[in-house]
Amino acid sequence: DLQQLIDELHPYDMAAIYRNLPEKHQTRFLLHLSIPILTDMIQELESDEQMTVLKKVGKDRSRKVLDDMDNDDLASLLDDMSPENIKLFLAGMKKEESTIVENMMSYPPETAGRLMTNRFVWIKNSYTVREAVEKLKTFAEFAETINYLYVIDDEKKLVGVVSYRDMLLADTHEKIADIMYARVISVGVYTDQEEIARLIERYDFLAIPVVDDDGVLIGIVTFDDIIDVVIQEANEDIEKLSASGKSIDFDTKAGVAAFRRLPWLVLLLFIGLVSGSIISGFEDTLHQVVALTYFMPMISGMTGNTGTQSLAVVVRGLASRDIDMKTVLGLVMREFGVGLIIGAVCGVLIFFIAFFWQGSAVLGFVVGASLLLTLIIGTLAGTVIPLILYKMNIDPAVASGPLITTINDIFSLITYFTIASWFLTQLL
Amino acid sequence: DLQQLIDELHPYDMAAIYRNLPEKHQTRFLLHLSIPILTDMIQELESDEQMTVLKKVGKDRSRKVLDDMDNDDLASLLDDMSPENIKLFLAGMKKEESTIVENMMSYPPETAGRLMTNRFVWIKNSYTVREAVEKLKTFAEFAETINYLYVIDDEKKLVGVVSYRDMLLADTHEKIADIMYARVISVGVYTDQEEIARLIERYDFLAIPVVDDDGVLIGIVTFDDIIDVVIQEANEDIEKLSASGKSIDFDTKAGVAAFRRLPWLVLLLFIGLVSGSIISGFEDTLHQVVALTYFMPMISGMTGNTGTQSLAVVVRGLASRDIDMKTVLGLVMREFGVGLIIGAVCGVLIFFIAFFWQGSAVLGFVVGASLLLTLIIGTLAGTVIPLILYKMNIDPAVASGPLITTINDIFSLITYFTIASWFLTQLL
Ligand SMILES: [Mg+2]
Ligand SMILES: [Mg+2]
Ligand SMILES: [Mg+2]
Ligand SMILES: [Mg+2]
Ligand SMILES: [Mg+2]
Ligand SMILES: [Mg+2]
Ligand SMILES: [Mg+2]
Ligand SMILES: [Mg+2]
Ligand SMILES: [Mg+2]
Ligand SMILES: [Mg+2]
Ligand SMILES: [Mg+2]
Ligand SMILES: [Mg+2]
Ligand SMILES: [Mg+2]
Repeated sequence: DLQQLIDELHPYDMAAIYRNLPEKHQTRFLLHLSIPILTDMIQELESDEQMTVLKKVGKDRSRKVLDDMDNDDLASLLDDMSPENIKLFLAGMKKEESTIVENMMSYPPETAGRLMTNRFVWIKNSYTVREAVEKLKTFAEFAETINYLYVIDDEKKLVGVVSYRDMLLADTHEKIADIMYARVISVGVYTDQEEIARLIERYDFLAIPVVDDDGVLIGIVTFDDIIDVVIQEANEDIEKLSASGKSIDFDTKAGVAAFRRLPWLVLLLFIGLVSGSIISGFEDTLHQVVALTYFMPMISGMTGNTGTQSLAVVVRGLASRDIDMKTVLGLVMREFGVGLIIGAVCGVLIFFIAFFWQGSAVLGFVVGASLLLTLIIGTLAGTVIPLILYKMNIDPAVASGPLITTINDIFSLITYFTIASWFLTQLL
Repeated sequence: DLQQLIDELHPYDMAAIYRNLPEKHQTRFLLHLSIPILTDMIQELESDEQMTVLKKVGKDRSRKVLDDMDNDDLASLLDDMSPENIKLFLAGMKKEESTIVENMMSYPPETAGRLMTNRFVWIKNSYTVREAVEKLKTFAEFAETINYLYVIDDEKKLVGVVSYRDMLLADTHEKIADIMYARVISVGVYTDQEEIARLIERYDFLAIPVVDDDGVLIGIVTFDDIIDVVIQEANEDIEKLSASGKSIDFDTKAGVAAFRRLPWLVLLLFIGLVSGSIISGFEDTLHQVVALTYFMPMISGMTGNTGTQSLAVVVRGLASRDIDMKTVLGLVMREFGVGLIIGAVCGVLIFFIAFFWQGSAVLGFVVGASLLLTLIIGTLAGTVIPLILYKMNIDPAVASGPLITTINDIFSLITYFTIASWFLTQLL
């Protein structure tokens, strides 16, 4: 029957059904869900939807749901709330649960402390396999579905890890200390989520343990949350590169999306006017050789594009790699090489085009030389600026695409007109 | 001692050590590794490094390594080889192993068939829990470390899934059919990797089973390969959006990177010249009102940028969401709204700037109205073009940033000069 169908439904699908119900049916639908199912479903919703559901189910049930929720999901719900609302929510919860969440909220966003869950099973190194299995059985319903157990010593310090599989294969009276893997990799509470994602990507772990300054095991970060981190960080990079301000989410309203993009666009408007005033500074040159105008969009467009290409390469490369001086030098040299090659190819090409179109070898030379120079410097700017920002601990993606484009734009116009003015007598 | 250290090292770290050894030490280092450890390490290397290692260890050992390698890793190694090399490699392998890999290679790239592994443990629905555990013990060393077993019937059709945890909790003589979860989600061999990634992201699965047309279980795709897919697809989108042609990998040589970016840049060079010839078509207007030139870079730059913003939003949104007509209409309406708001704000702003700078209300009006119009249409172009491509089953990211930028560039110049020519008498 219907109840059984609901029981067997995956929380994500349940959330999809809820979302697609007409408003007035939603409240009735929620009435039919048990607390565990409601909790599972709510964890699949967006923060604003979660708030609506919590309001709809009433104070009493929502308190139970909050107590039941994974603490990492709860932390990310509270993340989007006003301080007063947070207080209100925490006040309704069991002291024990609210303390854990308050603790998590004290760590900076995007760190292990915020992502970790306390729903994991730990065992002591002094246990036998049988004792470990007993403990696992007791806590099975409660724990995250990963397939290893973290091992701690009497001081709660993380000392090893053992997989369900190794436990299955071992003799029941063997000591955990003897079958565990001792070189367990862990992260600190303040480790950045991108660093954790890199570790999980490399080692293919299902989870990574989180320890405090004393090496005491205090939580785990699971792979599913890391998949979300990878997607989130990639979208963030793309939003920053394109200055599209957190609007990849299709549900963001037009007004909100517009006002997130506006600051950048207004800045670009002024920078664009700087280009304009540079052009106005060369008014006489332009008046004398109008043909120079025809190549302006091509030069500034191409310089902007090569800059963005290098920028994208650096930003994403940094996201998935450890960086040392050797890597940086190698990268800068490579992008310099790229700039040189594309500059040479495009420069020669435009020389011939300009020569045959406008019938002036000098004009061809001016345009070609400018393009060569601006492409090299455009590529280098797109490489070096984000690297410097990275070194200064600023997210390199904030040197967003449009900014690099526009800087390169201004620079390319200055180069072009400067070279042109050197050859002005020959151009006339 | 050293041998034990090597035995306990994670394959990724082993690969890092190998990579950092001087060339002549690498061969000696490889001599000290056992076949299983060598196999694990090789799976962490890039294709070209893998080839080098295989050559270094000699025909005999490399054959053993190939037999031992996960078939999904082997398939991705062969992917980058010439047909002759593939034949040579397969010929050296056990018939049994090479048939499996040949089979995988017959599926299109980026599908479940290419990503799946056959290293998983299946059990029959007629087994008892005890029988299942026995089978698991036998195959434990061989299987991927995930924590559920897939259940098949007598015709090898996938009928359910059961977790290690449920088996631990159940009585040893219970029937698997009675404790398994029957509504198991699976994918077909031809399912696109992005679709699989979406499923894993939603349902937080450690793996997803792959079935053929008859529902027969033929492999599983594991979460670690899906994390790689998510990163790869995000990088691909960014490379396409910025037309930086597969050069996020820092190891790509300058020449290769340059020639991957060149086709786009040459295309853009010609499109840029189209802008130039449009400007030349309005030469008289420009001669009469030189001030019009000053606003050209600003208008074309801003229109290009808004287009890229919308493009980025659509491309990444499509990557993580199911799309129906309602979503598409909602998105187009939102981006239209965004275009309208930023067009209005920036249009009014530039009206005042132009008015005070150049002292002409008519010029202010011409520039402001052009900006309003081009920002609206630029936003719509950045939204609608990728959606149409998506509908035509073309990757929307190929409408890459520079292309949309340049189309918008050309369009904005035409709009600007057309509006300007309407008001030419008032401008003089
Ligand atoms: Mg970060
Ligand atoms: Mg991996
Ligand atoms: Mg791996
Ligand atoms: Mg979680
Ligand atoms: Mg990031
Ligand atoms: Mg971030
Ligand atoms: Mg695809
Ligand atoms: Mg998920
Ligand atoms: Mg989830
Ligand atoms: Mg694999
Ligand atoms: Mg793999
Ligand atoms: Mg894609
Ligand atoms: Mg792809």
